[in-house]
Amino acid sequence: MGKTKGGFTLPGESGYEELTLQMADKWGADVIRDSDGTELSPEIINAGYGIYSTICIIRDHNEWAKQNPDKLQQTFLMTNPVVAESASVKIDLMKDFFAEQFTINDSEDSKAYWQVFDRTTNEEVKDWTYSDGVVTVNGVTPWHKYTVNFLAYRIWEEISMYNHTTNNWDKEHLMQIDPRHPETQQYMLDWLENWCKTHPATTVVRFTSMFYNFVWIWGSNERNRDLFSDWASYDFTVSPLALKQFEEKFGYAMTSEDFINKGDLHASHMTCGDKKLDWMKFINDFVVDFGKKLVDLVHNYGKKAYVFYDDSWVGVEPWGKRFKDFGFDGLIKCVFNGFEARLCAGVDAVETHEIRLHPYLFPVGLGGAPTFMEGGNPTLEAKGYWKNVRRALLRAPIDRIGLGGYLSLTIPFPDFQDYIEKISDEFREIREFHKASKPYVLKPRVAVLTFWGSLRSWTCGGHYHEHPELDLINVIEALAGMPLDVEFISFEDLKEKGLDNYDVVINAGFAGSAWSGGDKWKDEEVVTSLTEWVANGGAFIGVNEPSAVCGYDTYFRMAHVIGVSEDTGSRICHGKYSFEVKNDGSVENGTSIAPKMNVYLTDAETEVFAASDGVPTVTMRKFGKGAGVYMSSFRHGEINNRTLLNLILKAAGESCEQKYLTDNANTECCYYPVAKQLVVINNADTEQTTTIKTDSGDKTVTLGAFDTQIIQL
Amino acid sequence: MGKTKGGFTLPGESGYEELTLQMADKWGADVIRDSDGTELSPEIINAGYGIYSTICIIRDHNEWAKQNPDKLQQTFLMTNPVVAESASVKIDLMKDFFAEQFTINDSEDSKAYWQVFDRTTNEEVKDWTYSDGVVTVNGVTPWHKYTVNFLAYRIWEEISMYNHTTNNWDKEHLMQIDPRHPETQQYMLDWLENWCKTHPATTVVRFTSMFYNFVWIWGSNERNRDLFSDWASYDFTVSPLALKQFEEKFGYAMTSEDFINKGDLHASHMTCGDKKLDWMKFINDFVVDFGKKLVDLVHNYGKKAYVFYDDSWVGVEPWGKRFKDFGFDGLIKCVFNGFEARLCAGVDAVETHEIRLHPYLFPVGLGGAPTFMEGGNPTLEAKGYWKNVRRALLRAPIDRIGLGGYLSLTIPFPDFQDYIEKISDEFREIREFHKASKPYVLKPRVAVLTFWGSLRSWTCGGHYHEHPELDLINVIEALAGMPLDVEFISFEDLKEKGLDNYDVVINAGFAGSAWSGGDKWKDEEVVTSLTEWVANGGAFIGVNEPSAVCGYDTYFRMAHVIGVSEDTGSRICHGKYSFEVKNDGSVENGTSIAPKMNVYLTDAETEVFAASDGVPTVTMRKFGKGAGVYMSSFRHGEINNRTLLNLILKAAGESCEQKYLTDNANTECCYYPVAKQLVVINNADTEQTTTIKTDSGDKTVTLGAFDTQIIQL
Repeated sequence: MGKTKGGFTLPGESGYEELTLQMADKWGADVIRDSDGTELSPEIINAGYGIYSTICIIRDHNEWAKQNPDKLQQTFLMTNPVVAESASVKIDLMKDFFAEQFTINDSEDSKAYWQVFDRTTNEEVKDWTYSDGVVTVNGVTPWHKYTVNFLAYRIWEEISMYNHTTNNWDKEHLMQIDPRHPETQQYMLDWLENWCKTHPATTVVRFTSMFYNFVWIWGSNERNRDLFSDWASYDFTVSPLALKQFEEKFGYAMTSEDFINKGDLHASHMTCGDKKLDWMKFINDFVVDFGKKLVDLVHNYGKKAYVFYDDSWVGVEPWGKRFKDFGFDGLIKCVFNGFEARLCAGVDAVETHEIRLHPYLFPVGLGGAPTFMEGGNPTLEAKGYWKNVRRALLRAPIDRIGLGGYLSLTIPFPDFQDYIEKISDEFREIREFHKASKPYVLKPRVAVLTFWGSLRSWTCGGHYHEHPELDLINVIEALAGMPLDVEFISFEDLKEKGLDNYDVVINAGFAGSAWSGGDKWKDEEVVTSLTEWVANGGAFIGVNEPSAVCGYDTYFRMAHVIGVSEDTGSRICHGKYSFEVKNDGSVENGTSIAPKMNVYLTDAETEVFAASDGVPTVTMRKFGKGAGVYMSSFRHGEINNRTLLNLILKAAGESCEQKYLTDNANTECCYYPVAKQLVVINNADTEQTTTIKTDSGDKTVTLGAFDTQIIQL
Repeated sequence: MGKTKGGFTLPGESGYEELTLQMADKWGADVIRDSDGTELSPEIINAGYGIYSTICIIRDHNEWAKQNPDKLQQTFLMTNPVVAESASVKIDLMKDFFAEQFTINDSEDSKAYWQVFDRTTNEEVKDWTYSDGVVTVNGVTPWHKYTVNFLAYRIWEEISMYNHTTNNWDKEHLMQIDPRHPETQQYMLDWLENWCKTHPATTVVRFTSMFYNFVWIWGSNERNRDLFSDWASYDFTVSPLALKQFEEKFGYAMTSEDFINKGDLHASHMTCGDKKLDWMKFINDFVVDFGKKLVDLVHNYGKKAYVFYDDSWVGVEPWGKRFKDFGFDGLIKCVFNGFEARLCAGVDAVETHEIRLHPYLFPVGLGGAPTFMEGGNPTLEAKGYWKNVRRALLRAPIDRIGLGGYLSLTIPFPDFQDYIEKISDEFREIREFHKASKPYVLKPRVAVLTFWGSLRSWTCGGHYHEHPELDLINVIEALAGMPLDVEFISFEDLKEKGLDNYDVVINAGFAGSAWSGGDKWKDEEVVTSLTEWVANGGAFIGVNEPSAVCGYDTYFRMAHVIGVSEDTGSRICHGKYSFEVKNDGSVENGTSIAPKMNVYLTDAETEVFAASDGVPTVTMRKFGKGAGVYMSSFRHGEINNRTLLNLILKAAGESCEQKYLTDNANTECCYYPVAKQLVVINNADTEQTTTIKTDSGDKTVTLGAFDTQIIQL
């Protein structure tokens, strides 16, 4: 591939002006950015590049924050239960929590939302008093256990807290201010206006998201520091003012228990009730409405506004219906995986889609392993991430790539500098193909059915490594690079719009999760219309506990279609169908699907393609003109991915032998019909040979480890 | 041990009179029995032995049965669901069921109990018609699924069916007649009277239980012949007449769905509602009341009446409150395991407690493996069973042992004949010790807390091999040979009688099971009183999913005591306490406890004694003056048993170093204080040496594989 330029954002580093400009040239950068907390030198600023500047609007305002401690962001917390031994019990509110992160908000308007519960009976207790950090509950039942829900200010912005703690910094703790208050809004607008005025060279203001961090609650005990972390939850958005405004708008009041939920909180991986949905709408509206004012202000200064979808991303969901109203010009997503590139690429509301590649130019990476320091191998890391991302980039257009961190750290790693040069050129070439035409896709149109639907397209909330055990995150990582059109639909979509636009519906997750759907499966309309659609030729693919909900004759509500259900215990005395494993070729050699021990065949028609420990792991069942497929689990990987693709094809009535499909599962390809370019990639760390049927005859290629080849047909 | 006589029941065999009398002498038999369907010859009958004769009152009356087809026993069945494709759906009732076992009862009084359900909506459908084995449901919703609950006669007595099928017999199928009908009762009484008259030599009539078989439903598909088998369920007791009489007595009607329960039926391993409990009481009363008439009749002829607790045992539960009302003289239990010997030994209501040892004198054993034929090793089998049973016999007195089957089969196995001689003498010696005094027990008094309480003492329903995966069956098998007093209590017992008589409460099972307790844990009184009792010094030991029920802040309701709970999914974003494993010595080397992946520590006080795959498997937590112990699972075995004993002792505040306890987990001992006899047994298949602290100093003994030594102190 020839040397090309553009679509690359380089992190500039003051003191390394020469290196900055040298790498900008080598990697074809057209934009130089600062990193959080650094300033670019004039030499760099005046070199003719576009300039990105990073701002995080809610932190780095400690002076104002200290003057307005009642305008810090807040959260509800629940104490651990305390067992009463007499007629009263004292509960130390902060005992369980990290004192550097939280401080009790014991104002009167806060205490109005506090609640004490007898958790033995699930009843609220009204007879309590508060003093000096301790709630005394009176008239209690001895040997029952009691908890307090209370409101706390968050006094250390969580990303700053994490960086401090991980790197043993001793800088001042940054606080986060809450734009819910008009005074904070005015302060932010003034501050941003001043910022724009004082940064004339900046062409793009990169918002490190907006206002509210994902939920991250730290504990006092070092053995359990991470009490709760959910990259998509809304608990960090509360305050007495917000609760009051919600009540005015929605006509009913949220209680602390609506958030606390017996201490479970509401992980975004689980389904939830309408109250939480109302609250999300309320916050989302606020984040968009005030966020738009900030974006408008940036636009007024002739700059573009991009949003980095990370950290304080609550209410900024790029696939949310209101995201377009922000008026952002660009969306930047840091990516470890293919699905994250698809998440970014698929957002219509912005002009520019940019991904931040890993590894970041930091000494250590995730989990504290060395990257840009002795013992690190950043090139190998980069290859691994590029392998994940490349297949997604083939399927969907991304406009820009970039790096983050400290450029000087790459000096001892010239092979890394060369590798980035190579993949930058590769990226730009693929980008050109996309400009010419949409890549070729196979016939089955896939819908992923979840509680959240399109709101959480191409994501289960956060990064892959946070919940690698989720089947759906693995399914969507697999789908991210497949030659298929994929959409994400909710149960409401299914009911309101039907499934005419799809050939395959995938439902993947554990029972009760947002990904499986939980109580949504109690809706007979959902079951009925899916059943009819399959009978008429559709394909339903279930993974783990698809359509699972208690209260019916089968735990899997779609058991009549997939021919499989799960025994939750009550069928302990029931026999099970014996079966023979007859793989029709869909399950590739080397496929690894973990069994689920209580799964059983519900009828004799179910074909078992794979089994493990005596239980079926991959099955298919004809149902009318359509089919049901079951997989007991799914983890992405070259071989498993191909098995999933085969099952999608088979379930949809298609052959696994298709044009523009490699015959070696370690390799994939993407065909751009207008440019007549065939891109073949090797996802394995060893040389691979593969043959691809094309309209110009069979093409056989041999690729080195992780290599890419582009063939003009 | 010297040669002794008595307490042995020998199966006589006609045609082998000499062998019969020779073995009777060798094994010290005082009683000779016939086997099902065989008659003893006069030579044997007149040899001066007691004579047991076996009768099964409900079968072997085919002539009468054919004349009274409406008085055969019945059951409710539910068809597999059928998905409707149009406005009506036809359901072939017998399609799923074994035609040789069932025939539809389509009489009007039967059809009054039939029910059709839309299983998609869980609603009953009233618009249906029946003709020629097919129910046509009208006005259905297309793509919903429908089932029919109907009543069927059982036309092949299940034990006969099993024996036929297993042994490829082609004898006439035996039917079972239902004593619910007055005519059947009169027939049975007349038949039994005649039988007694014509069998003057019989000293003991052995009832092969009473009337109603455990539930065993066979299917039409050879791949799923065993649709449902539960050795303690009551579904085979229904009939229109019984349902009518129930309604008159209890003031409300049971429906077919009360039995069918969405197709799950009500396995006795699960909790159930009050309706099933009422039905059980209703049937139990009937079985006892009519059973007593049969027993009285036997007594009138100067014979004793023993009951063999197997096959048609429903309503005959020996630990039931009404069992004593039968007036049985003896209880015979076939035993594979120690807990079965304890089940038999602990029943006060009979004079004679007899166990039938395994292997039975049949060519093949359980699962079709060879026993008394080429390839079999009956002596080794006998050693294995004796190993299981012996430790229980040491703890509780059994009056008689015996064998079943065909004596002639032992001829090629003289070592088996010798081994039975050896263990018969061993049995009789132990029996004498019991007569002198109760064996020494350690301090902790153990209560096993289950839904069924004392009704199902020393059992989880059937034999060990049916549900070896149940934690409780393993726990009670371990307890069966421990030097501890053990009782079985229900949640009602706990509430009504308190726990003053116990030091340790064990709750072991999966969530929702009768063994764990299911919804009984929603009763705050249960939780509160257990909590108070532990705080005051009690010990609560939970295994698998103890006290588990949905709807509270922790899935395990006793989490505050045991310091452990389980994440059912909603805590996916919660962190978990890290821990160090610190075994205080309670967990023996070689202990094997399977982990439960979603278990987590609920607080920092929980001590982790063992862990596997990163999750705690054995924990202990101090709570007030008492303690909570958690084990993620339990399977019996020499080492695991000792670990359980250690945990019981530790939790109860006792040392694991105790008098009359071996210091080698492969061995156990039992001390009889009055006789001053110490019996030491080796449960391993290799030589073992152990030292026992006694009041007469330390005793060290070495025992061969599986051996017993008796030491006079």
